[in-house]
Amino acid sequence: MLHFDSDYMEGAHPAIIERLAATNLDQTSGYGTDEVCERARQRIREACACPEAAVYFLVGGTQANAAVADQILRPWEGIVSATTGHITAHEAGAVEACGRKTLPLPQHDGKLDAAEVRAYCEAYWADENREHIVAPGAVYISHPTEYGTVYSLVELEALSQVCRDFGMRLFMDGARLGYGLAAVGADVALPDIARLCDAFYIGGTKVGALCGEAVVFTKPGLDDHFFTLMKKRGALLAKGRFLGLQFDVLFEEEDGGLRYENAGRHAVALAQRLAEGFRAKGYDLHLDSPTNQQFVVLDDDAKARLAEHASFGFWELAPDGRTVVRFATSWATRPEAVDELLALL
Amino acid sequence: MLHFDSDYMEGAHPAIIERLAATNLDQTSGYGTDEVCERARQRIREACACPEAAVYFLVGGTQANAAVADQILRPWEGIVSATTGHITAHEAGAVEACGRKTLPLPQHDGKLDAAEVRAYCEAYWADENREHIVAPGAVYISHPTEYGTVYSLVELEALSQVCRDFGMRLFMDGARLGYGLAAVGADVALPDIARLCDAFYIGGTKVGALCGEAVVFTKPGLDDHFFTLMKKRGALLAKGRFLGLQFDVLFEEEDGGLRYENAGRHAVALAQRLAEGFRAKGYDLHLDSPTNQQFVVLDDDAKARLAEHASFGFWELAPDGRTVVRFATSWATRPEAVDELLALL
Amino acid sequence: MLHFDSDYMEGAHPAIIERLAATNLDQTSGYGTDEVCERARQRIREACACPEAAVYFLVGGTQANAAVADQILRPWEGIVSATTGHITAHEAGAVEACGRKTLPLPQHDGKLDAAEVRAYCEAYWADENREHIVAPGAVYISHPTEYGTVYSLVELEALSQVCRDFGMRLFMDGARLGYGLAAVGADVALPDIARLCDAFYIGGTKVGALCGEAVVFTKPGLDDHFFTLMKKRGALLAKGRFLGLQFDVLFEEEDGGLRYENAGRHAVALAQRLAEGFRAKGYDLHLDSPTNQQFVVLDDDAKARLAEHASFGFWELAPDGRTVVRFATSWATRPEAVDELLALL
Amino acid sequence: MLHFDSDYMEGAHPAIIERLAATNLDQTSGYGTDEVCERARQRIREACACPEAAVYFLVGGTQANAAVADQILRPWEGIVSATTGHITAHEAGAVEACGRKTLPLPQHDGKLDAAEVRAYCEAYWADENREHIVAPGAVYISHPTEYGTVYSLVELEALSQVCRDFGMRLFMDGARLGYGLAAVGADVALPDIARLCDAFYIGGTKVGALCGEAVVFTKPGLDDHFFTLMKKRGALLAKGRFLGLQFDVLFEEEDGGLRYENAGRHAVALAQRLAEGFRAKGYDLHLDSPTNQQFVVLDDDAKARLAEHASFGFWELAPDGRTVVRFATSWATRPEAVDELLALL
Repeated sequence: MLHFDSDYMEGAHPAIIERLAATNLDQTSGYGTDEVCERARQRIREACACPEAAVYFLVGGTQANAAVADQILRPWEGIVSATTGHITAHEAGAVEACGRKTLPLPQHDGKLDAAEVRAYCEAYWADENREHIVAPGAVYISHPTEYGTVYSLVELEALSQVCRDFGMRLFMDGARLGYGLAAVGADVALPDIARLCDAFYIGGTKVGALCGEAVVFTKPGLDDHFFTLMKKRGALLAKGRFLGLQFDVLFEEEDGGLRYENAGRHAVALAQRLAEGFRAKGYDLHLDSPTNQQFVVLDDDAKARLAEHASFGFWELAPDGRTVVRFATSWATRPEAVDELLALL
Repeated sequence: MLHFDSDYMEGAHPAIIERLAATNLDQTSGYGTDEVCERARQRIREACACPEAAVYFLVGGTQANAAVADQILRPWEGIVSATTGHITAHEAGAVEACGRKTLPLPQHDGKLDAAEVRAYCEAYWADENREHIVAPGAVYISHPTEYGTVYSLVELEALSQVCRDFGMRLFMDGARLGYGLAAVGADVALPDIARLCDAFYIGGTKVGALCGEAVVFTKPGLDDHFFTLMKKRGALLAKGRFLGLQFDVLFEEEDGGLRYENAGRHAVALAQRLAEGFRAKGYDLHLDSPTNQQFVVLDDDAKARLAEHASFGFWELAPDGRTVVRFATSWATRPEAVDELLALL
Repeated sequence: MLHFDSDYMEGAHPAIIERLAATNLDQTSGYGTDEVCERARQRIREACACPEAAVYFLVGGTQANAAVADQILRPWEGIVSATTGHITAHEAGAVEACGRKTLPLPQHDGKLDAAEVRAYCEAYWADENREHIVAPGAVYISHPTEYGTVYSLVELEALSQVCRDFGMRLFMDGARLGYGLAAVGADVALPDIARLCDAFYIGGTKVGALCGEAVVFTKPGLDDHFFTLMKKRGALLAKGRFLGLQFDVLFEEEDGGLRYENAGRHAVALAQRLAEGFRAKGYDLHLDSPTNQQFVVLDDDAKARLAEHASFGFWELAPDGRTVVRFATSWATRPEAVDELLALL
Repeated sequence: MLHFDSDYMEGAHPAIIERLAATNLDQTSGYGTDEVCERARQRIREACACPEAAVYFLVGGTQANAAVADQILRPWEGIVSATTGHITAHEAGAVEACGRKTLPLPQHDGKLDAAEVRAYCEAYWADENREHIVAPGAVYISHPTEYGTVYSLVELEALSQVCRDFGMRLFMDGARLGYGLAAVGADVALPDIARLCDAFYIGGTKVGALCGEAVVFTKPGLDDHFFTLMKKRGALLAKGRFLGLQFDVLFEEEDGGLRYENAGRHAVALAQRLAEGFRAKGYDLHLDSPTNQQFVVLDDDAKARLAEHASFGFWELAPDGRTVVRFATSWATRPEAVDELLALL
């Protein structure tokens, strides 16, 4: 059976396992105060060209999303998200469990449109009864989105400008950021993200780590007492160095790039090969994804046939009654597995 | 420098690291639905002699405490705890962040007294205005406690009986359970805990895992939709098998006992040697701890002298102005380190 | 200046003021345990033909909405609402402040469509990853809606059936219920509401009371410990009899009907006369409202001209750039005021 | 039957009922934006000699306590309270329902001791792990306390100084403030409270209003967006003028004093007469209360005998097995009722 269900089916990048073994009996202080975490933070600051960034290591994406939303919102504010944003659609109400409201706006291939965000904010500020309403205080975007799409630099700049204009913070969920940085045609690099966002996270879980997301606050003060908020939200790991170590390894150079970048490139290349293969065999793709997730539209027969030899994710029903399914590659996907899958078509 | 600051300074039991390496590229489903987790669950059910137990793997102790409290309390209830209970004293308000109230009662060497809990409940139920008050809905105990002490079987049975009598759930925080099971004179075993508590967790982080706590619900129905609550609280790990694997390894037999038990025995034996050494040199111990944490009362001179060669934890000021400090051993403590520490006295 | 801003500009029905004066120095027990409240409850149960209904008096609408949502939802559930539902659009995140998520669906003249709710639920239950998602646990409707429209009996039965089919509770926000009962063509009476909804409230604030909403739970058990939840949410009035008294008065017979019903009829009749007047003068109405709120589309000139002599509420921008404004009548509106307003057109 | 159960058994000061009747059909804007509220605010600012004070009208005490606590605490902070403080002991967890922790300290006749608060704060700030702990961010006191006692000016200044020294806000629950201002030997006046506290409220419900508490923020900025927080917490009244009117009436001069002060004096004088009467007949008082609540220790016989002709409140069991009961007078208590009660002894 070939598995393309998700990008978190394997363990970790072998270099992480090696480092874990090599340093296992080292003794360090807890809660991320150790030097391994500090070294990882430094590597991330450098990769982001953001020397003043504050970096925290959390365990998972939903946790990171809720903790950051809780941190960056003021009591009367909510967070704008595309209707398909993970934060509002697939996290069991984690943001609301913090007493915060998500403010859904239409999605376009999974993305928010800056002009629509602007119009929403203008309407809020023009409303003389706005004190009865949750204020838009931050904007949440995922990059890549839940549909594998990415923001262009122009799009990201436009969103950032809207946030600047209305006193909002811009927060990027980078659970799959490695695949976004390596996306076909990508023109957004880490320093752009650090410059344009107030907070974002670099996803480890889906890009080569056992678990772990590196939350980056790019503006001074925005992380005030975030350590205590992490504790309060159950997001503070005792053996913090275990998370730091993984990012330390992923942000080391190897073969002319950061391991994190290389992992992204590997997965994207295989996903694109997969997409081309599907197209060549006459299959319809739900949309044009430049990253590691590919959404294919299958009729019931094709779905059943493929499911005998491969596993993949159900996504949604297409309007015509067929099914949209997801094939995900990862840093760990073997090229042979892609070939074998394509041979099945 | 000798480090006795805490029991979470090293990585993981070497057998865990080996297993991680050996299974790294295995592909499994996510969120704890895989067979590694299922095997670990089965081992835990067997060790607890509780075949119907529902077992979930969470990442850390504060997270487990808050999630379980949130799960087992009804909307009008709070959770009784000793004033020194971790849940009310040292978790940054994680339970309150779930909208729940902790109900503090006096501590006795870190423990709750069943008679005092009973009196508290009787007063609540006798109060004709009790509907204005948070009801005692659950009792939280830590075992070992924050002072390294443990409940005897008689004490645990008494607490369980109070809970039965007043319709409350009994929840044991076992962040250091391995050291409690191995405590000097311990007469409480896992099957006792499973029989007497409604929920408890088996601490991994401090007893040989990189991270991870195995939450056990012993009564059917009490875990209803706990999976979604975990997601909502940011406590659901994508690569759940990483947590399951660690408990799978820790609950394997090795040298005539479960690895988890052996790890506990190792640490307790060294801690007891440490305590005897301190006593032999004329030092005062704050209380009689039968587990891996030892609380020594030091005057400023002794503290400064020791601190040159060893690190340990500040605990609290003693009434006479001296300082109570904590020395913690763990599964990873080297016997030589204990000898070297004692030689410094 | 003529005031049509809202239906809560005056004090209370004169009979309420008289009763307050007449009973002012009576001594009663607190928190709604008095006989005045009990008499009001009994009147409401009779008007609803629901002898087993549990009735609670709360102070205001947002408070009632949040308290009921918090009460009727289980921890993993959220509440479906039209995007324009007050609960999600205009209550400053009160439901989310209880840790609950609102689940917005499209609005049709302010109403939910039962078929769309059904499709939403079917999709949820068909989703194999639904445990990662907030479950639809209740449906919120306002009647009349924020646009003055009402559900027909057929529509309400359809929504109730969807709720039955998917184990959801149906909750009606009746902040303006008196105007809904008296709506032009209304075929939904209190006994229908009590039969088809699991919880609803009879709005006092906007229909003749100084303040107060009577929350009715129609199914046994659904109000379990709601008294304590009210206390916890700051919604329990010490002098509860003040609220009970108002509903006692409003649900007394006077002139062949309940005062509450008569108040509704008065306002609706005047609003309809207003609507006819606007139409007769060539004004566009935004939609056909059968209740006490009328939404008129004005260009800037007309708006400015009218605003010199009358006050009304801004509602929203129409797609063509004109403005939708609201004129509200109430139990207290003088017929002469309507005539004077129409004379201004 | 003579009723001394509580100070909220009657309606409102007759002048309030008169004003309600006289202004009933006036039309005003909603949510406290009207001129009646503004006039009441101005009267309160003057009585407090605090021209810059921000004043908001809420409906009840628990609501006011939770809303203010939520407003004045930062995310990592909790609120210190005596163990008997209403906020932690008798409000069903309303503060915790906002995600906030109450930090209980010992009570002394219902009061906090400034030196103990200082010691608590010193210990917090000396703790190098304090970021794992809820920070003391505010201090809650009730004045009068739940035992009818009051803070002296010296005591209040000391508490205020501790708050200044540790960057905490001081919040006074004045649910019975009128009785505190009129307490025997009282040396704390409204301007002192405004000067020494950051926030407090002037209780209406128990001192002559039908309902209503006037929350006063004395320092600029502390009420930032409090209007929206009120809405979010269900504490914003649509017909706000109903609350403003009551304070407008209570803070008018009548017979050489504010009505609010006169109401307090009336109740305290009668309560003192009651206390003297009890003492003269050989009854034990639980403590020396200078306000309108008197706590008498009764054996079962005396309690049963009195209960035939008078109602009063159960308070707590005395250590010797007798019962502490409460007799409360109010602005509405008739002197004859006191005489009749004393005649029963």
